[in-house]
Amino acid sequence: MMKTKITIIGGGFAGLNLSKHLAGKEEFDVTLVDMNNYHLFPPLLYQVATGFLDVSNIAYPFRKFFHGKANVHFRLGKLQKVMPEDNKVLLSTGELAFDYLVLATGTEPNYFGIENIRRTALPMKTADDAIEIRNYMLQKMEEVTIELDEIRRKKLFSVVIAGGGPTGVEIAGMLAEMRKRILHRDYPELTGLQPRIHLVDSASALLGAMSVQSQKYTYEVLLKMGVEIHLNTQVKNYINDTVIFSDGKTLETQILLWTAGVTGKIFEGLPQECYGRGNRLLVNEYNKVSGTGNIYAIGDSCLLTSDKNFPQGHPQLAQVALQQGKNLAANLVAVIRNQPLTPFAYNDKGSLAIIGRNKAVADFPKPALHLEGFMAWGIWLFVHLFSLVTYRNRFMTLANWAVAFFTKDQSLRMIIRPRADQQSSRNE
Amino acid sequence: MMKTKITIIGGGFAGLNLSKHLAGKEEFDVTLVDMNNYHLFPPLLYQVATGFLDVSNIAYPFRKFFHGKANVHFRLGKLQKVMPEDNKVLLSTGELAFDYLVLATGTEPNYFGIENIRRTALPMKTADDAIEIRNYMLQKMEEVTIELDEIRRKKLFSVVIAGGGPTGVEIAGMLAEMRKRILHRDYPELTGLQPRIHLVDSASALLGAMSVQSQKYTYEVLLKMGVEIHLNTQVKNYINDTVIFSDGKTLETQILLWTAGVTGKIFEGLPQECYGRGNRLLVNEYNKVSGTGNIYAIGDSCLLTSDKNFPQGHPQLAQVALQQGKNLAANLVAVIRNQPLTPFAYNDKGSLAIIGRNKAVADFPKPALHLEGFMAWGIWLFVHLFSLVTYRNRFMTLANWAVAFFTKDQSLRMIIRPRADQQSSRNE
Repeated sequence: MMKTKITIIGGGFAGLNLSKHLAGKEEFDVTLVDMNNYHLFPPLLYQVATGFLDVSNIAYPFRKFFHGKANVHFRLGKLQKVMPEDNKVLLSTGELAFDYLVLATGTEPNYFGIENIRRTALPMKTADDAIEIRNYMLQKMEEVTIELDEIRRKKLFSVVIAGGGPTGVEIAGMLAEMRKRILHRDYPELTGLQPRIHLVDSASALLGAMSVQSQKYTYEVLLKMGVEIHLNTQVKNYINDTVIFSDGKTLETQILLWTAGVTGKIFEGLPQECYGRGNRLLVNEYNKVSGTGNIYAIGDSCLLTSDKNFPQGHPQLAQVALQQGKNLAANLVAVIRNQPLTPFAYNDKGSLAIIGRNKAVADFPKPALHLEGFMAWGIWLFVHLFSLVTYRNRFMTLANWAVAFFTKDQSLRMIIRPRADQQSSRNE
Repeated sequence: MMKTKITIIGGGFAGLNLSKHLAGKEEFDVTLVDMNNYHLFPPLLYQVATGFLDVSNIAYPFRKFFHGKANVHFRLGKLQKVMPEDNKVLLSTGELAFDYLVLATGTEPNYFGIENIRRTALPMKTADDAIEIRNYMLQKMEEVTIELDEIRRKKLFSVVIAGGGPTGVEIAGMLAEMRKRILHRDYPELTGLQPRIHLVDSASALLGAMSVQSQKYTYEVLLKMGVEIHLNTQVKNYINDTVIFSDGKTLETQILLWTAGVTGKIFEGLPQECYGRGNRLLVNEYNKVSGTGNIYAIGDSCLLTSDKNFPQGHPQLAQVALQQGKNLAANLVAVIRNQPLTPFAYNDKGSLAIIGRNKAVADFPKPALHLEGFMAWGIWLFVHLFSLVTYRNRFMTLANWAVAFFTKDQSLRMIIRPRADQQSSRNE
């Protein structure tokens, strides 16, 4: 039997779930391609960035997932070009042929074309980003302790978080808790000094995608924790350690965290007409990219408008990606068996955001229900713990959370940074 | 009361133990300086390099050690220069005055002046080194899976370990176990192919510092595990992926691990006469650097020849460093109280090396006792686990070891490497 070659680009929630549902189906020869050799659980990245979890708690090597799954292979590489006419992709590590191609490449930070921000702000989309934030902030804290100049000290000692979505809210809350519980124990030199935490969003509320009750509660809790919230405000530029806002105000800081938006990736080889709003790939109800015959897109990178409950497309959430991966697996089986296909319909299970210790918000659609505070916090912990992909991840994360909860502290505040000079000399 | 300023350079076993024994002694104002913001437990680095432990399992931030210890401070920085006439040191992060200076700077890899090796071999002294080894070897494995050229594949698929001390033996054993238990499950593409593991030492036996029985057992066990051992052989150069040995033979590889020797660091400001064999600082029986009045050296970086059982100086071991740190703390107290000082005498508690699963060697001096196999392995695990500095480290390491033991595998094989381009653009 000639096997059908499926090439999946990207091993996030969508791509990995698709592979999982194709594993063991002997009609298919599946190759999962990713720039990293591991799957990552991004909802907990902010805990890596603040030193509460290790990357290894929320990451897992693809090759270990595929132990014993003879029809699924892993290939390290970055997509360079799609060649639809040849049924091939060009990767940074060579060519790969396919019968069906699935793009599950997710998104990248949207800097809205502001080059200064792209170059110097700290994004938080990848494991590398989170480690870089941790290293950078710890480094800046060490600099504060020996800085005598008042103006330079102020720059080092304030954080601006651009973007009031879940990531921005979560990191603002975490930093406020650390300021309260850890700062002066770690840095007794700084007793009496308080860094400032600014959270900025262009909309008129935080957590734009959630219920008004959740927005209100989050705003009030963060305010009480001492976070300075700037709504209806955009970050327009970042020049010489100065953040410039849309209303002309400015703020001096050396730490600008960027969670202000995402955009799809553009690949050579696909015509401009394939892309919609936010560079998302336009797909039909079966996730097939418009204008192509055997190319699909799933997860954050696609825009599917045929779901009657989501005529503007789906929110870019893990649940959508997981469900699209599973649905496409079933449809690919149906395609080669000449069976009817199932259009994608998102089953909204609700949304959650954590603000701090014992504080979170949750909105559920059916039955419509809003929760806040301790109960929502418990649900958040439970859902995130059990969404981790392996028992090992869950166990280690739980152990780290237990340490953090009972000690009100954690001890992962290490600046660990393989030397750039060494790497480059070895890779000459 | 005017406090006595003690500046300690280096927070390894010696420097940290000294700080610990001075903490709470209100006569002293202690500053510990380190290039990293964390203490590291180097004996388990090889497990980080092979993906069995996380760095965070064997590292701990200095500032957390010093919570509540009002007379001990931490300063991030690298020693640039000693200014004995001014009682000051110049760090990469500014100047620091002292009444007493303690150098506990340890050692760095000795490349015997071979520039090619310094530039391209992989050392294993720091956390960054261990992460680099893990990343690099995983990267090479991915390259093997898509390499079609037989010669290039062979280069990628063999490892040369220079140095048959504990580190070399431990990593050779670990790689041999991984080849047996994990390789073909992670890389089914490579079924039937076996990478070669070469262990090279210039002496006539492995583990030169241990008993003949330990040496013999280690040699036989590694041989049985399929490690190719080259004794009486030195690595002379490494050119274009070719290791050149002292006997003229050559071996092609892209992976040369360097554990072949260490050397002390030379600092500007101390006269040449202060240094002895291997750039170790010559000290008297109280660890005072010869020719100085208020500068001490402890741990691997010093050479103390007045201990009657060790007329050639002490082996560069954790136990020596720990004991010197403790002894110097007592002597510094004695100095300012005008009490008699205690000359350093090393209490040898024995030495250990692990070879693989259920296999280790142990030599104890009093009573003279040699152990090998399962019993020695149990002792090795116990001693290393309890030598970790905090409960958190011990608990997390035990958890990781338990996963590794029962699954005969571990899942930390992630290539996690903050992008060099990003770092440098931000640090412009």
